[in-house]
Amino acid sequence: MRILDRQQILAAFDADAVTALLKQGFIAYSQRRVQQPPVQHFLFEQATGDGCIKSAWLEGDELFVVKVSTGFYRNAERGLPSNQGLMMAFSALTGEPQALLLDEGWLTALRTALAGRIAAELCAPPDIQAIGILGTGLQARLQLQYLKPVTGCRDLWVWGRNQQALEAYRHDAEAEGFRVRTTQDAAELAAHCRLIVTTTPSREPILQAADIRPGTHITAVGADADGKQELATALTAKADILLVDALTQCAEYGEIAAAYRQNMLISTPIVEFGTALAQGGKVRSGREQITVADLTGLAIQDLQIAKGVLAAV
Amino acid sequence: MRILDRQQILAAFDADAVTALLKQGFIAYSQRRVQQPPVQHFLFEQATGDGCIKSAWLEGDELFVVKVSTGFYRNAERGLPSNQGLMMAFSALTGEPQALLLDEGWLTALRTALAGRIAAELCAPPDIQAIGILGTGLQARLQLQYLKPVTGCRDLWVWGRNQQALEAYRHDAEAEGFRVRTTQDAAELAAHCRLIVTTTPSREPILQAADIRPGTHITAVGADADGKQELATALTAKADILLVDALTQCAEYGEIAAAYRQNMLISTPIVEFGTALAQGGKVRSGREQITVADLTGLAIQDLQIAKGVLAAV
Repeated sequence: MRILDRQQILAAFDADAVTALLKQGFIAYSQRRVQQPPVQHFLFEQATGDGCIKSAWLEGDELFVVKVSTGFYRNAERGLPSNQGLMMAFSALTGEPQALLLDEGWLTALRTALAGRIAAELCAPPDIQAIGILGTGLQARLQLQYLKPVTGCRDLWVWGRNQQALEAYRHDAEAEGFRVRTTQDAAELAAHCRLIVTTTPSREPILQAADIRPGTHITAVGADADGKQELATALTAKADILLVDALTQCAEYGEIAAAYRQNMLISTPIVEFGTALAQGGKVRSGREQITVADLTGLAIQDLQIAKGVLAAV
Repeated sequence: MRILDRQQILAAFDADAVTALLKQGFIAYSQRRVQQPPVQHFLFEQATGDGCIKSAWLEGDELFVVKVSTGFYRNAERGLPSNQGLMMAFSALTGEPQALLLDEGWLTALRTALAGRIAAELCAPPDIQAIGILGTGLQARLQLQYLKPVTGCRDLWVWGRNQQALEAYRHDAEAEGFRVRTTQDAAELAAHCRLIVTTTPSREPILQAADIRPGTHITAVGADADGKQELATALTAKADILLVDALTQCAEYGEIAAAYRQNMLISTPIVEFGTALAQGGKVRSGREQITVADLTGLAIQDLQIAKGVLAAV
């Protein structure tokens, strides 16, 4: 069995190649060609941690992939990253273990950021004066980095609760070539940005319906478990079109779950990434539409990024 | 992360220590102190294979374990074992990967055999003139090996469909100190044996209700998925007491599933391993009772055997 560490994995990672694989994966998922058993969840209450196991096989592929990922929210006190993770690839022909990818959670972060890129390709309005990013962590950095091929816009607003974290983010975003403004007022950000990405683990909505101008697209990355929510329920309900990675997951515990449960989406078109990609087109059909993309994260993404890395090493 | 291969794992394996851990695990499971998410299943139809992912955490433990195991039934054509597998241990305090156990499926085979030993301790009648084993594979060998501490009986009947496999089994069992008779007639075996273990992947019952004498205990190991069944439904229904590793799994896809579904077990006491062990007693309360133990395999067993190995290396 091949064992790859984080350095080897990151050196082999090719964003464009993986983006193409992710698109194929989303399409296969929506066409029901992926075996993706329900996610296994753990809750480590006393240690303030959680874990999940996601696995997938694209029918016909030679590999299937199992991913274990965890979040322990007091790890920083020990000088450890909060998120840990690894992936394993097995032969779908003989069952033999093929590869262990000790990516320390990076592949999850990267495939999530690239899903944000795909969401922007499908939904972003043509005229973006400024990009808005909510959150100042790793995912907030990666989302911005992978939006660069989608738009020429280099004006950025970033929202966060902590001034020091905002300044650190500004420093990194300027190094990526952006002109950066920081704010602790999400409404101020929304007033300037028509392409917004939310990357926080918030359990209270940060963006309100009244904040959002017509023609805005929001990719909501943070909500991936029951109780997490970054957008006001009324804002989700106000969207003209919703893009979701998986209807079942998003309706159950994604960003749209609250609005879905309250029957506020009855007349809103909801389209899966895979369906939109298979149709080859844009999700956005009008300049003034508000679009929201909801990412909960699929095991097929883990399979596809692992395949991409393994093909390149 | 520590990486152990099969040799290191088997060298560190201590059957008595692991048996004690398994008993603790069964008790914790029945007392609802184990987080054990639903098993993930894969079906690789064209390659005639299947796979599953089992994971467990005993609340308060420092480790949780994820196991991937597969069966590919044409592997023999390639000179490979049908069953493959590995386990991984992660910190339940920080999420960090701790150990990779490349056991090639051995730990699953061993913890299953030791559950058979525990079943015999709980259910076997006092007077065993002969042990009966159905099947001639690895599990049939391990079950026999680990019955040796439970009974002084060294007379053995073994049933199989293939004469060559029966002779190979006879050779190995004689080396373990048994006097061996082989048969292709399961009723003949049942007429002589009061401690019987069935280890086949059969989808048709092999033992019939009329074959079984009063005072017999049967441990049914083979049925671990929908459609597998080694004992006639009427035989299961005839048992005075049923011992199960997990009520939910056994009723859904274990040996007792068919009888359970047909409402034939309404007046049969069904007791979990963990409940029986916590009460400290025997399941069998009368000399002439027929008892059946149904093993479907629990993730808590994987956790416990992995802990046993990791404590010893």
